[in-house]
Amino acid sequence: MTDTEQEVHAVAERSREAAAELAPLTRDAKDSALHAMAEALELRAAEIVSANATDVERAQADGQPQAMVDRLTLTPARVVEIAEAVREIAKLPDPVGEVVRGSSLPNGLELRQLRVPLGVVGIIYEGRPNVTADAAALCLKSGNAALLRGSSSAFTSNSAIVEVLRAALTDTAVPQDAVQLVPGSGRDSAQALMRARGLVDVLIPRGGASLIQTVVRESTVPVIETGEGNCHVYVDAAADLDKATDITVNAKTHRVSVCNAAETLLVHADIAEKFLPRVAAELIERGVVLHGDERVTPLVTTAVPATEDDWSTEYLAHDIAVRVVDSLDEAVAHIRRYSTAHTEAIVTDSQAAARRFVSRVDSAAVLVNASTRFTDGGEFGFGAEIGISTQKLHARGPMGLPEMTSTKYVVTGDGHVR
Amino acid sequence: MTDTEQEVHAVAERSREAAAELAPLTRDAKDSALHAMAEALELRAAEIVSANATDVERAQADGQPQAMVDRLTLTPARVVEIAEAVREIAKLPDPVGEVVRGSSLPNGLELRQLRVPLGVVGIIYEGRPNVTADAAALCLKSGNAALLRGSSSAFTSNSAIVEVLRAALTDTAVPQDAVQLVPGSGRDSAQALMRARGLVDVLIPRGGASLIQTVVRESTVPVIETGEGNCHVYVDAAADLDKATDITVNAKTHRVSVCNAAETLLVHADIAEKFLPRVAAELIERGVVLHGDERVTPLVTTAVPATEDDWSTEYLAHDIAVRVVDSLDEAVAHIRRYSTAHTEAIVTDSQAAARRFVSRVDSAAVLVNASTRFTDGGEFGFGAEIGISTQKLHARGPMGLPEMTSTKYVVTGDGHVR
Repeated sequence: MTDTEQEVHAVAERSREAAAELAPLTRDAKDSALHAMAEALELRAAEIVSANATDVERAQADGQPQAMVDRLTLTPARVVEIAEAVREIAKLPDPVGEVVRGSSLPNGLELRQLRVPLGVVGIIYEGRPNVTADAAALCLKSGNAALLRGSSSAFTSNSAIVEVLRAALTDTAVPQDAVQLVPGSGRDSAQALMRARGLVDVLIPRGGASLIQTVVRESTVPVIETGEGNCHVYVDAAADLDKATDITVNAKTHRVSVCNAAETLLVHADIAEKFLPRVAAELIERGVVLHGDERVTPLVTTAVPATEDDWSTEYLAHDIAVRVVDSLDEAVAHIRRYSTAHTEAIVTDSQAAARRFVSRVDSAAVLVNASTRFTDGGEFGFGAEIGISTQKLHARGPMGLPEMTSTKYVVTGDGHVR
Repeated sequence: MTDTEQEVHAVAERSREAAAELAPLTRDAKDSALHAMAEALELRAAEIVSANATDVERAQADGQPQAMVDRLTLTPARVVEIAEAVREIAKLPDPVGEVVRGSSLPNGLELRQLRVPLGVVGIIYEGRPNVTADAAALCLKSGNAALLRGSSSAFTSNSAIVEVLRAALTDTAVPQDAVQLVPGSGRDSAQALMRARGLVDVLIPRGGASLIQTVVRESTVPVIETGEGNCHVYVDAAADLDKATDITVNAKTHRVSVCNAAETLLVHADIAEKFLPRVAAELIERGVVLHGDERVTPLVTTAVPATEDDWSTEYLAHDIAVRVVDSLDEAVAHIRRYSTAHTEAIVTDSQAAARRFVSRVDSAAVLVNASTRFTDGGEFGFGAEIGISTQKLHARGPMGLPEMTSTKYVVTGDGHVR
């Protein structure tokens, strides 16, 4: 093992010990710790903002784009928001201990399946330093030790936040090592984390497609893939065109940089002539560029011709790929081929079409007559979200606190033998 | 890609297409297919037994141990049992479509989280050819395409069984490719399966520790670890010694070769002098060798001294490691250090001790006053079991049909936008 690996493994070992202490704590004990963390963030906001200034200056000196600098910047008001978010997490129900399934077996054994923490949760994330406090709080509330690995661009900010959170835990029942930052900010420390199988129970990458793909490829620790969203809106032959227009415009333009924004519009041939010019006008008015196939471009003269790449691109920008299909099944086949299986929506007044689309489309979320923008832990009423899983194992779709747990069977007898 | 990789990927691609056709099928359609499979197994039992004879002869010629040859051997009666097991699976409720969670959101959106199939399930297994039909039936019932990779020693038997099952699907709604055998029986074909990320949704290894570890290490497809069981029985100071004796003897000797057999006995110092000679006499009578620490050997003169290795060994034989501990917490610490987190039992009449043990021990199943042998899908009332997961993600403990599914959110609105 390299020095970095040894260092990261030693830290992970401490996370593991903290996780064992944290797991049996009551909700009250965990909530007190969360409130202590929130208070400390507010009291020591000046320190955090000052540490952040170092990162911001370096980013500016490095000529980083302004949007990136904005995401990185913390203000006293922003730190108060971060503290408030921690308090909101304290308000949520504790998933640990929930009885998922239970029965009395024929032989009198009492069987219960309980939610328990996962253990050590590694989070690898980019940019925004607010994720540091947010991820730590979500882990703590669900009884997990958080082992955090932010981007090197936010290393000074993240170190300051973690130092404040750990100090706040001193007088609580939660061990300080329940919140740790992976030491170092180089690639090798991230890699050591990805290889800490047996010490880290799960890795959740939060960030862009390339970060997520790197973690999936290089990690021997189990990974929950999140966030890549090549989302589709399919406007059926039986769609109400007012609703279809509203939903398409909202899904594409409400916020273009997020994973649940629409990236491709599929339109049934029967209504293409009426619908496409209409939706195109609304989209173009909002600065959207349409990338259309050869049946779209004659109807929308400003559309640029779509290439094969457009169908699989997550633009995260004011662009949308547009294709005319001859049937619902053709739309489904297109989605199966190109989608990242995050979110797809159908707009239709036909019950049969909705039913077929819902049963045939294999994505984390399938929406009927609603914008793709609703796939979100907050919108779903989960209160908080650690990410949106696009994989099928363990968790799929928006992940709230229950998705940050495993289960354990507890079986009680009275001397039972087989 | 090598030729083998191309071949295996082409087969996996067909599994993928079959999975898409299989996913929306009704329970009736799937059950009809299962009954057709069961009938075909019975009708063509002679062919299967004759193919099996080839494998058996080769195993004998290779000088394989008799126990291995026994596990490999099929008789007409055994094939009927296999068919019966398929019919039992048909009787179980269909997990697909179950609403796991649902609510009406404040804005009127209707949210439902439904169980859906995982997609393509790869099973890598050893020895027994009955697993072929069993795994195929469990996959089919849960709406998944089965991509099977048995051991090379059973290749002729497995090929015959799969050929019978596929032929039986001809006149059903289930596509034939829902059941496929990975081509080839060499190491390279198993490896190609483990690398078919994106084509295969999950790999479940069924077999010994070394098979499972190989799959975990080499696979880029997500794996569910199963079966390794270094299970502990802890006899507390407050134990009823009659029950403690019965439970220890049952956990160790009821069936020594299974993953839920006990491998280590931890005894509280307060009762060691009374309990150890008593339980040792019962165990020794049944041919068990005790491997004791330095506080055990003076009390059980026939015990051999335990080495560090004994604490982490899954004997699967008539051996048990025995240690005296000074407290429940010392027992918990021992378990945390050496256990594979499969199953641990406590024997105690103290409510406080039971509560502490259950909350502190982090294993898939924790039993109070019951034998470790109860950790089993059948005993838990699941009707069938694809394996016992010893990992924390996705499924933990005995895996029934619901554990072979993922979920999907279906959100229905009426033109909803954000």
